[in-house]
Amino acid sequence: MSNLRRYEPFYEGHRDRILKRVDEAYQAFQKTKTFHYPTWLYGKPLGKLVTLEVEDCPTFGDKAYIELDTQRTAFISVDMQIDFCGKKGYVDVMGYDLSQTASALGPIETALKAIRKTDMKVIHTREGHEPDLSDAPFNKILRSKIIGKGVGIGDTPDQGLGRLLVRGEKNWDIHERVYPIPGELVVDKAGKGAFGSSTLHMVLKNLGVTHLIIAGITTDVCVHTIMREANDYGYWCILMKDGTGATDHDNHLAAIKSIKMQGGVFGNVTDSKRLISALESAK
Amino acid sequence: MSNLRRYEPFYEGHRDRILKRVDEAYQAFQKTKTFHYPTWLYGKPLGKLVTLEVEDCPTFGDKAYIELDTQRTAFISVDMQIDFCGKKGYVDVMGYDLSQTASALGPIETALKAIRKTDMKVIHTREGHEPDLSDAPFNKILRSKIIGKGVGIGDTPDQGLGRLLVRGEKNWDIHERVYPIPGELVVDKAGKGAFGSSTLHMVLKNLGVTHLIIAGITTDVCVHTIMREANDYGYWCILMKDGTGATDHDNHLAAIKSIKMQGGVFGNVTDSKRLISALESAK
Amino acid sequence: MSNLRRYEPFYEGHRDRILKRVDEAYQAFQKTKTFHYPTWLYGKPLGKLVTLEVEDCPTFGDKAYIELDTQRTAFISVDMQIDFCGKKGYVDVMGYDLSQTASALGPIETALKAIRKTDMKVIHTREGHEPDLSDAPFNKILRSKIIGKGVGIGDTPDQGLGRLLVRGEKNWDIHERVYPIPGELVVDKAGKGAFGSSTLHMVLKNLGVTHLIIAGITTDVCVHTIMREANDYGYWCILMKDGTGATDHDNHLAAIKSIKMQGGVFGNVTDSKRLISALESAK
Amino acid sequence: MSNLRRYEPFYEGHRDRILKRVDEAYQAFQKTKTFHYPTWLYGKPLGKLVTLEVEDCPTFGDKAYIELDTQRTAFISVDMQIDFCGKKGYVDVMGYDLSQTASALGPIETALKAIRKTDMKVIHTREGHEPDLSDAPFNKILRSKIIGKGVGIGDTPDQGLGRLLVRGEKNWDIHERVYPIPGELVVDKAGKGAFGSSTLHMVLKNLGVTHLIIAGITTDVCVHTIMREANDYGYWCILMKDGTGATDHDNHLAAIKSIKMQGGVFGNVTDSKRLISALESAK
Repeated sequence: MSNLRRYEPFYEGHRDRILKRVDEAYQAFQKTKTFHYPTWLYGKPLGKLVTLEVEDCPTFGDKAYIELDTQRTAFISVDMQIDFCGKKGYVDVMGYDLSQTASALGPIETALKAIRKTDMKVIHTREGHEPDLSDAPFNKILRSKIIGKGVGIGDTPDQGLGRLLVRGEKNWDIHERVYPIPGELVVDKAGKGAFGSSTLHMVLKNLGVTHLIIAGITTDVCVHTIMREANDYGYWCILMKDGTGATDHDNHLAAIKSIKMQGGVFGNVTDSKRLISALESAK
Repeated sequence: MSNLRRYEPFYEGHRDRILKRVDEAYQAFQKTKTFHYPTWLYGKPLGKLVTLEVEDCPTFGDKAYIELDTQRTAFISVDMQIDFCGKKGYVDVMGYDLSQTASALGPIETALKAIRKTDMKVIHTREGHEPDLSDAPFNKILRSKIIGKGVGIGDTPDQGLGRLLVRGEKNWDIHERVYPIPGELVVDKAGKGAFGSSTLHMVLKNLGVTHLIIAGITTDVCVHTIMREANDYGYWCILMKDGTGATDHDNHLAAIKSIKMQGGVFGNVTDSKRLISALESAK
Repeated sequence: MSNLRRYEPFYEGHRDRILKRVDEAYQAFQKTKTFHYPTWLYGKPLGKLVTLEVEDCPTFGDKAYIELDTQRTAFISVDMQIDFCGKKGYVDVMGYDLSQTASALGPIETALKAIRKTDMKVIHTREGHEPDLSDAPFNKILRSKIIGKGVGIGDTPDQGLGRLLVRGEKNWDIHERVYPIPGELVVDKAGKGAFGSSTLHMVLKNLGVTHLIIAGITTDVCVHTIMREANDYGYWCILMKDGTGATDHDNHLAAIKSIKMQGGVFGNVTDSKRLISALESAK
Repeated sequence: MSNLRRYEPFYEGHRDRILKRVDEAYQAFQKTKTFHYPTWLYGKPLGKLVTLEVEDCPTFGDKAYIELDTQRTAFISVDMQIDFCGKKGYVDVMGYDLSQTASALGPIETALKAIRKTDMKVIHTREGHEPDLSDAPFNKILRSKIIGKGVGIGDTPDQGLGRLLVRGEKNWDIHERVYPIPGELVVDKAGKGAFGSSTLHMVLKNLGVTHLIIAGITTDVCVHTIMREANDYGYWCILMKDGTGATDHDNHLAAIKSIKMQGGVFGNVTDSKRLISALESAK
């Protein structure tokens, strides 16, 4: 039957050289605990080559290193909007402890200071909806109204800054401590993820990005969703864990741990201190 | 400046009727704790209308109910392959406790027995790669080799059933206890997610599916990724929690909890007992 | 071999009722030349049921009719920006005959007048790039510079209105004759298509849209690309042909003809007169 | 108002170096009429550097050259299935002139002979549906039944080879003259396009592909759709025009012309002779 041929051994040929590359990288990792920058795949570094320490890799208690090219790395600051970490924003209205998400502000602010001295790309994302809410699913609006006791997406809370999660409102804007500066990119998205519904994927492709350092809020929701999408396409994703936060601390911790299972099922984990130290060593 | 007009109040018009629907649904939920089937949006039920109990909704300790139309609901059994829950499969080779993922077999088997008496659609997914591994990212192969101590994706372990996570191999096949039967659909995917890289999204659209009951493995990886993708598109997603499992029990529990934050940020959670009871009540 | 089971006859079951629906619709079409609104799939019409005449269906010289629900139909006006149909815009700078694309303005203007009296959704798209051009592929910028003799995407032509195809510039804005009014939606996109890189697909899903009437420019590029994307997902796409135009008239004509091959491989074709007449008959 | 900042001049910074690259490439093109391989973006060639002549670039009557890296180029043979170019297949049943699509067989066969001596990747796509047709939209099935006078997708024509466009059937299989050999990849798709509903995009990313040479059938439908998708993501797409064909010859010619508008709005056009000559010169 003809469709059987689909599973014939089609692998003797050209993919052998890639498997050889995997084997070389495996041998190198055994010796140096380092994921070297695969120049055979991406070309020579265009910027500086940075060696970043990551934790619990390949197993818990270990540490490892990832080489990245500053010009091929993007720092993604996810949804650091007043709605998620500021007073009278969406998370606040739902009744969650703001300090859990606001704690990401300091580390991102500090990291941005160091990153902005390099040629690493900075991308900010914003979750929000059209004023007419046409890009918000019915059940998303409904659930937000229920948890907010009648005040949900598109409503303005008492003494609020504007309509919750609506584009153009003050509460939807990015927190001033981590506000974009000229040269940085802002990507709007309507869902938790971004790859299939914004230009983010195109931008990463156009810029030749190979590695992503991801921070923002919330850890287990938007941060994790974007990390999963990028990971499926082979981007090297590294979470800057102190620059993240969630509405529940246990979920925050588990989201971080989950990344590190299976030798890094969604990528790797570092923190702002290690990132800044790596950037400074590269100079 | 012209682009300002983008954020003008474009919401007075046609979306008012949808916001009115949200308000009606909100009022109804206050009285009945039920997410009624929105016939104005999807049309009349084509099959039987089932009322399913879900837990911790809108907040922990509460319970609520979701109405679903059997002919517009799909049961998705995610990656119940030997590689993830059987001996000499991928998870086993990495050294994880198989009982954590194999525990999903019983509840799915039981649930399928009840579901197969209804007109609910059953969809199975399989994660796996072409024999030449061209649909596997370099870092995914490399990481698997590192965690597997030299035996990773595409390799055959000692006394193994075949090449790990490779399509067509015995270990890649679905476990016999929850094997597809005629009339059920199998969707192959190469990543954790499925929406942007398989026909799953098309199939759900073609079949007019509005609600998904999701089970499978692993809870925090593929199950959660598919749930996130579907949720962003407005599908009502309900996890059948006892039909899931992960390589780490804490991550499994947190993945379940995470769904239920914010009034159901990724959907809702039920179990096989409640699902079966709901299906039987509908008869 | 296990993978053989993938191609077992999985079709005896639940899809039979859909094939039955296809057969019913086929029999009905034989009698009435009408694609009736499939209420079994979408539910009862929410707005008015309109019967629209389309041309050359199923074969050239024939005519047929499509029923659509005004509340489940979106009119998409594609890229009616000064850059594509106005002076000193992108198409003008490349040296093409503006009248070819500007001819779409009149029919869209007239059609919008009729549509705005109904509850049909109106969506406008805009092609354009971030000021830093990070969402424009390298070869797209380069090719535009070559064809524009040194003046391409991101450059400001002599006495031009602003940087070509850059968001926020006057030339990037929608032509005033077909400008969005409150209640209408504007979707930005960076490529020719929109489904995988904007919120368009989400919006159509959220609004429960089943039919699209598509106009705009240019016929063979952006209009056709969006039509192809929507058609693959089962949306009923109908081109309003006099509200389209291209940089080459033969390509324009062929793009229209191509839609109508194979009984409507990308959907159907109508014009503004027939659309307006259908809307008025429905009152 | 805060959202204004979105359109502030965010372009002074990091994108300058890319604009500088565009300018360098533009100057080089002026002198050599060649799109040189951008090693700054992709790295050094891994295979042989080939210089391929393309036609009507930048304007009709001109010719230009594109450099490509054999190891970073994929040859995509689109839907060369019996259903589209063989007797008793789908196109034949609809009543179209088979010679229009079958004419692509010779040039692809010849080209494959030359390509298979190189390290260029070969990818075949197949359009087809699950036996239960769940991945075929209702209107696609219905239209095919109408144009086929009662025999459409999923039906077996009189003395036919199997169910039309159904996976696993003989008519769905690839024509023996251009059949895949070991080492080549086969990608299944349910729609005209492939990027959002198959692993094709992942595969191109994993393999580090930068250039695509596209052939197959039909020119104005599947070939064009895939070319549009890839082009939006910055892939350099080159149509091998004699290895294509359509159900209507005028549409075939217009589809080719359309690619070449605007300096190459969807890429470039060559033929098998020029491709083979380029490959042989590279040795």
